[in-house]
Amino acid sequence: MSKEKYLIEKFFKSIEKPSSEIDYGIGDDGAIFKAQKNFVTSIDTSIEGTHFPLGLDPLDIAYRSLAVACSDIYAMGAKPHSFLISISNKDSKEEWFSSFSKGVEEFMNDYECHLIGGDITKGSTSITVTFFGNIIEKPLMRSGAQEGDYIFISGLLGRGHHDRLNIKSTEQSNHFLRPELPKKSIFNIVKYATSCIDISDGLLIDLERLCEASKVSYEIIFDSEFVTSGTEDLACGDDYVLCYTVNKNHVDKVKKHIEGSHCIGRILNISKPSEIQMNGRALLMDAKGWDSFNQ
Amino acid sequence: MSKEKYLIEKFFKSIEKPSSEIDYGIGDDGAIFKAQKNFVTSIDTSIEGTHFPLGLDPLDIAYRSLAVACSDIYAMGAKPHSFLISISNKDSKEEWFSSFSKGVEEFMNDYECHLIGGDITKGSTSITVTFFGNIIEKPLMRSGAQEGDYIFISGLLGRGHHDRLNIKSTEQSNHFLRPELPKKSIFNIVKYATSCIDISDGLLIDLERLCEASKVSYEIIFDSEFVTSGTEDLACGDDYVLCYTVNKNHVDKVKKHIEGSHCIGRILNISKPSEIQMNGRALLMDAKGWDSFNQ
Repeated sequence: MSKEKYLIEKFFKSIEKPSSEIDYGIGDDGAIFKAQKNFVTSIDTSIEGTHFPLGLDPLDIAYRSLAVACSDIYAMGAKPHSFLISISNKDSKEEWFSSFSKGVEEFMNDYECHLIGGDITKGSTSITVTFFGNIIEKPLMRSGAQEGDYIFISGLLGRGHHDRLNIKSTEQSNHFLRPELPKKSIFNIVKYATSCIDISDGLLIDLERLCEASKVSYEIIFDSEFVTSGTEDLACGDDYVLCYTVNKNHVDKVKKHIEGSHCIGRILNISKPSEIQMNGRALLMDAKGWDSFNQ
Repeated sequence: MSKEKYLIEKFFKSIEKPSSEIDYGIGDDGAIFKAQKNFVTSIDTSIEGTHFPLGLDPLDIAYRSLAVACSDIYAMGAKPHSFLISISNKDSKEEWFSSFSKGVEEFMNDYECHLIGGDITKGSTSITVTFFGNIIEKPLMRSGAQEGDYIFISGLLGRGHHDRLNIKSTEQSNHFLRPELPKKSIFNIVKYATSCIDISDGLLIDLERLCEASKVSYEIIFDSEFVTSGTEDLACGDDYVLCYTVNKNHVDKVKKHIEGSHCIGRILNISKPSEIQMNGRALLMDAKGWDSFNQ
């Protein structure tokens, strides 16, 4: 038996569970879905030394890589249901794969998702996840923001970056290791959001992407209430919260019903320059976010 | 604009084409499929230095990585239609990405498939592809082989391995760089096959996987007609042809109608040992195939 097959059988086939979305999962050349409507997918790679530090516990590598990839599914206004995982690792040591599969299983339990297939190969440590989900009501595109909409974030900024600098492995409340995805709040967010993006590289760079797609500008009213440290959290990356826009008529409902969300500013006409205000004055930021090619 | 976004816009968004399967492709947090029945997916990673040699032309890296991943879709009895691609590369040099995107476009044209999204990040060169396809009639599982079935391969063995040792970059007929997938013959194969697997790691190891799933044994009658070099081609890897089984009543039709396919043996009852015969005598092989962890 090849090493890949042995590892798949022992550590991954063993944690597979039946799913209402899947006809056939792990064990053949591909996975087969049941008929799917409103079906969304995204791929994301996490590389040792770039996205997570050397020597991280494999359980944490697995959990974080899955969470980071899953975040894109929520950002589309969808409920994640299954994923493929491609694992590249320096060796085939069982302890590594045993710990890794525990992280996969923990994520599957936390987010009610299913592992349906994958690939294991030798190489520098790198995890690629393809996630699948079903759109809840309508897709939340980056392009739907309108002048006058209010800008919200689904959770505090800076927690992931702060906790990256203070890693205690396998600690449940570490936001770098276990980004808290909008598992419950997504059902309310899709009711009110006009556009959405997930903040992975930093609020400013991701909000700019949303504004570019929507052909609008933004105004952020900085408030220390929605950050962990200070203004640097506007551009730190590793947040994995959603940034979404809401028509002004729904702002009160969002503030009332969507726990954890914060209003951070407004969408402007594209003729105006985007800006950040702090204490009534414009705040200039050099960095906008994280770019793997600039590390 | 981040380097990733710049590269996506310039080299990948530019080669995107409308697809009847896709509502929204490149440019948001995820891709959205139209309603899908009989939908199959698979993921595959190709790593520089492991799956392909250092210094390979990026055009060839792209084409080969896509072909290798796409092979699994055919092996499920499906017609491939779209893919996500995650690119990890040492730097963001435009020449590299320009050449790579040409390889993607060439593959898209040859196999009528669509790029629908992806991810670009800094790291050692490694390509992960998630492929999607629609099952043509019924899924071809590894588990369907029956005692008495005949074993076929959809093309000669050993061409990929032979051509790996004789790489002339961007040469169209090089089977290592451009594995010839069963684009046309798949429609006949699905009519007659009782089980199927793609030969990626070597005929013997992959046929053993099929036999294990089907709870049967195999008998190969070695014939130099179906290999490129000699018996070593039974275990060399890099073939990317299909190995499939056919009920004895359909063998003549398969031989007549499926161009390029060769009958290589029969399926035996599991109580018998698997064996290879050459000139009426049993052939013993040490190696069964390729294993990335043994390189």
